Amino acid sequence: MKSEIGVGLIGFGTVGTGVARVLIENAELIRRRVGVPVTLVRIADLDITRDRGIAISPGVLTTDIQQVLTDPRVDIVIELMGGYDLAKRVILDAIQRGKHVVTANKALLAVHGEEIFAAASRQGIDLGFEASVGGGIPVIRALMEGLAANNIQSIYGIINGTSNYILSRMTSEGQRFDVVLEEAKRAGYAEADPTFDVAGIDSAHKLTIMVSLAYGTPVNFKEIYTEGITGLTPLDIAYAKEFGFTIKLLAIAKYSEGEIEARVHPTMVPSASQIAKVDGVYNAIQLVGDAVEDVVLYGRGAGSMPTGSAVVSDVMAIARNLLKDAAGRVPPASYQPDQRRPLRIRPMEEITSLYYIRFMVVDRPGVLSQIAGVLGRYGISISSVLQQGRKEGQTVPVVIMTHMAKERDVQNALREINPMSYISEPTTLIRVEGRDE
Amino acid sequence: MKSEIGVGLIGFGTVGTGVARVLIENAELIRRRVGVPVTLVRIADLDITRDRGIAISPGVLTTDIQQVLTDPRVDIVIELMGGYDLAKRVILDAIQRGKHVVTANKALLAVHGEEIFAAASRQGIDLGFEASVGGGIPVIRALMEGLAANNIQSIYGIINGTSNYILSRMTSEGQRFDVVLEEAKRAGYAEADPTFDVAGIDSAHKLTIMVSLAYGTPVNFKEIYTEGITGLTPLDIAYAKEFGFTIKLLAIAKYSEGEIEARVHPTMVPSASQIAKVDGVYNAIQLVGDAVEDVVLYGRGAGSMPTGSAVVSDVMAIARNLLKDAAGRVPPASYQPDQRRPLRIRPMEEITSLYYIRFMVVDRPGVLSQIAGVLGRYGISISSVLQQGRKEGQTVPVVIMTHMAKERDVQNALREINPMSYISEPTTLIRVEGRDE
Repeated sequence: MKSEIGVGLIGFGTVGTGVARVLIENAELIRRRVGVPVTLVRIADLDITRDRGIAISPGVLTTDIQQVLTDPRVDIVIELMGGYDLAKRVILDAIQRGKHVVTANKALLAVHGEEIFAAASRQGIDLGFEASVGGGIPVIRALMEGLAANNIQSIYGIINGTSNYILSRMTSEGQRFDVVLEEAKRAGYAEADPTFDVAGIDSAHKLTIMVSLAYGTPVNFKEIYTEGITGLTPLDIAYAKEFGFTIKLLAIAKYSEGEIEARVHPTMVPSASQIAKVDGVYNAIQLVGDAVEDVVLYGRGAGSMPTGSAVVSDVMAIARNLLKDAAGRVPPASYQPDQRRPLRIRPMEEITSLYYIRFMVVDRPGVLSQIAGVLGRYGISISSVLQQGRKEGQTVPVVIMTHMAKERDVQNALREINPMSYISEPTTLIRVEGRDE
Repeated sequence: MKSEIGVGLIGFGTVGTGVARVLIENAELIRRRVGVPVTLVRIADLDITRDRGIAISPGVLTTDIQQVLTDPRVDIVIELMGGYDLAKRVILDAIQRGKHVVTANKALLAVHGEEIFAAASRQGIDLGFEASVGGGIPVIRALMEGLAANNIQSIYGIINGTSNYILSRMTSEGQRFDVVLEEAKRAGYAEADPTFDVAGIDSAHKLTIMVSLAYGTPVNFKEIYTEGITGLTPLDIAYAKEFGFTIKLLAIAKYSEGEIEARVHPTMVPSASQIAKVDGVYNAIQLVGDAVEDVVLYGRGAGSMPTGSAVVSDVMAIARNLLKDAAGRVPPASYQPDQRRPLRIRPMEEITSLYYIRFMVVDRPGVLSQIAGVLGRYGISISSVLQQGRKEGQTVPVVIMTHMAKERDVQNALREINPMSYISEPTTLIRVEGRDE
């Protein structure tokens, strides 16, 4: 049996620093659990002079990635560089050399996951990516192991902390998106370029990974309908509240009849539901399985130490495999490689949902009946209407909640209504989940 | 490599039926994940004639436990009989025969866990008990694997569905304990003899298991302070609400200075906290780790299929080990057997807490000052006082919230105050968690 497990870290930024701290500060705990020391023997980063507040032995740090990949003491390579091309080359190179890999790189896995999974399976290499979704929350492990006996019926995730922080503040303060975004940047809750976060792309990356594991299917990230929070207004948040809903940026997956819905968009959820109460930078993932019913996992979705916790949990799982010569015990994509089956991702226009539609109309008699008439022709039935603050001849909101309707019908109806002369501003459409019909 | 994993089930009641259903109905999913079929080859129960609504092949059912234990096709024995003596003998017998074991028996593990863990370790046998805490919630796996890199700082669990259901209804309806209990019995949410549930014993069993795994220490179940919900009144629930708190039956563990606090009692938690919003039969466990910070796992804490999900997840984990010849990959008690260290469970009188104290006093001038005087002499400082509905000469409640105080001091102060002539009814003491001082 090996008397020590060697770890090489590539990328010594925020998460890398957390990983190093966990490995060093909790070394004794890790040894007592795993059975042998798990030692950080190599760290590669472009900047090896900056003080990260942890004592690293001289000789561990290098600017040369190859020094990590070729070090015979390194059993497990942790890739925390981010990005696509170099990170992918590094991971495939490590796999080729028989080194096990842990990564937090959701963008890479969402786009090149299939190639990486295949390479790892072929070489009998373990690939850990608990940190790629939900930061410190053990959700990947729940999908691969804890809930492994379940057909997953649906997934609802608040899996982007930046968006949730902004939405939470918009909700509690009635503030505008752009104002809160600027404050979030200053407070360090949003990056200088927050596009991936607020446009829903980061959530779609993470959903791609979860769907792939839950259903044993390759997923083309581009097939996931993705809409961010940039268009949300305090007005819609206030209306949501009036109807008993809270708006969250949800990543949603549902299985039915051999097909999968997978989509990311602002969603109204009942304010009394568990997921509506997830505020600030927290993440939460609700998994619904045919046996377990609903499980919610909640915690910090980002940050140096929480993400470090997830990375090191993968390192420990791989170390436990190595000590039993059991690499590949759980296949990288959760299902056995020859047992994965491509499932169709249902195009967005084929889904059905409840809808909140806010029209801005010139207030004159007959407008509501005209709108209702078009909706009716497309088979969209109205559950309730709010028309407040009537001011004849001026612009007023007309808010409609629908019964279950087809996305295609709703889009077609809007295409017909929006050019009408009584429509004075762009129409807002928000999908509604979690309400029984 | 084995071409099939055989499972033997002992105990075909509510949970056993759920386990059989998951194994049979999700057999294809399980095979696609594990790689080979996982087959239920033997079921033992005293009653093999009752229709459980699932098709079991003839020859599988037996009334003879030995037929399960001695069947060479059985790789994994699932013990779902409950109780202590026979269940323990069955588990030890299975281990002796080299069969791996899955159990949901928290009472047995809380009382005889050390002996069973030791036998499993000695024989290199896997022992799964995900279903023993939190039903379908993968909390055991979180402690053993997902959060394995963390020093666990604290655990807060709502881990008894019956108590939580009763408390939730008392809170939402202002109803009395005994009234709700009777309704809960009729609705099937409480057993005919609900003592283990409402007296906190079931929660203490589960806390014993979690503490043992989190801290790598043997735990004597009897050292866990245990107080149930039978003494709670609508009056205290109403006062809690007034102070911004909700009363939950919490299982609490905290680590500090090489010692552990472990206790089960009704607890006031901030109504805005995640754990306060866990209603009805749901369970939730908050784990706080030094790296991951706070994680909450939420789901159904009981029930045939959710518990079946947890049992089968253990079966699959063991099957994955068997296919790699990696039994013992994670030791049964999470830490390596030779790395467990007995930690002292701090006696209740040594803990510190915030306290809610409700005195029932004869309303006459000077009473509050006398009470405050005694508390002050014991070093207990008052954070706020509520004294409502004054009726000179009659019995009125005096409610005091304290600052951080020592349990010993509080108990001593009450021993001095309670015999006083102005005290007309027993005093109520409820500990408060989750409020910063």
